[in-house]
Amino acid sequence: MHYPEPISKLIDSFMKLPGIGPKTAARLAFHVLDMKEDTVLEFSKALVDAKRDLTFCSVCGHITDTDPCRICKDESRNKTMVCVVQEPKDVIAMEKMRDFNGLYHVLHGAISPMDGIGPEDINIPDLLKRLQDETVQEVILATNPTIEGEATAMYISRLIKPSGIRTTRIAHGLPVGGDLEYADEVTLSKALEGRREL
Amino acid sequence: MHYPEPISKLIDSFMKLPGIGPKTAARLAFHVLDMKEDTVLEFSKALVDAKRDLTFCSVCGHITDTDPCRICKDESRNKTMVCVVQEPKDVIAMEKMRDFNGLYHVLHGAISPMDGIGPEDINIPDLLKRLQDETVQEVILATNPTIEGEATAMYISRLIKPSGIRTTRIAHGLPVGGDLEYADEVTLSKALEGRREL
Repeated sequence: MHYPEPISKLIDSFMKLPGIGPKTAARLAFHVLDMKEDTVLEFSKALVDAKRDLTFCSVCGHITDTDPCRICKDESRNKTMVCVVQEPKDVIAMEKMRDFNGLYHVLHGAISPMDGIGPEDINIPDLLKRLQDETVQEVILATNPTIEGEATAMYISRLIKPSGIRTTRIAHGLPVGGDLEYADEVTLSKALEGRREL
Repeated sequence: MHYPEPISKLIDSFMKLPGIGPKTAARLAFHVLDMKEDTVLEFSKALVDAKRDLTFCSVCGHITDTDPCRICKDESRNKTMVCVVQEPKDVIAMEKMRDFNGLYHVLHGAISPMDGIGPEDINIPDLLKRLQDETVQEVILATNPTIEGEATAMYISRLIKPSGIRTTRIAHGLPVGGDLEYADEVTLSKALEGRREL
């Protein structure tokens, strides 16, 4: 009973966020007390609105406030390419790049037998349905370069191959600005394997 | 326009908290989307409640949901000692220690001519009023060991001295578990100055 109840409740709420321990939570809660009431009300509303108004796009699975999402609805985008990613955050990372003009498909996870996540637990059946109308000519597998991401990419590529649709995997290699000396062996080996003619 | 509006609003709100930049804010916002609706509603309510229900105790200036605060109302506490601190957080730090059974007085700041904060801008007049009824026999000055904190302690002690009330300052010295080798000169000099007979 160190804190008055309203503040200890707020601290508890902050502590439910990732990477926020008791000390940071207390610091944030005290900061909220110093904020203007309008700003706090806005924050409070933003929390509920984000949770209530956002759904997943029924086509691609990306988070959206309209269904289908803005990317799926956008007529200027190249509908022959679908980039498969694990999470909505990945779509945002791709969009920031501004280099990709196709559509997305968000799996919401990756196959992980260790955690009991099989192909039917992620958004793979919907992907296969999307590929049936023959608009899509290339599926770019942009799952994470982790064991689960690789396994998922491999699994999807095997499912799609028979249909004749081109499946590609994003390149592995040294990150731009990285240093050869500090690269791990696997990345270096992938970088060598993926070398290209200049 | 990378994010749907509800999420970008939530990210903006998170970014108003101290130490939270755009990347962390986005991570927290996405985490909120994955939280249960109840938890989010609770969080949202906790924000507004903390802001609305908490006020400052009219006696000591500590944050509280009842006025006077629980510490000021507590009959078991020693009313002859008042510990003067800069912020409500400091009261909580003192209370965690469980060694002090007196009352508090929260200044909400420290004298800082550089920032244009004079003695009348912090809670000093109220402290002087509290001292007039002759219950208080000792004022412990526990402002921070910074230039502003020291100046504030010095200023208050000079104001109180004529009234004959004992004024003390918390000790400066090496933190427990610290290392002599890494202590700065000023701390070391204060530690030497404050040495005590064993």
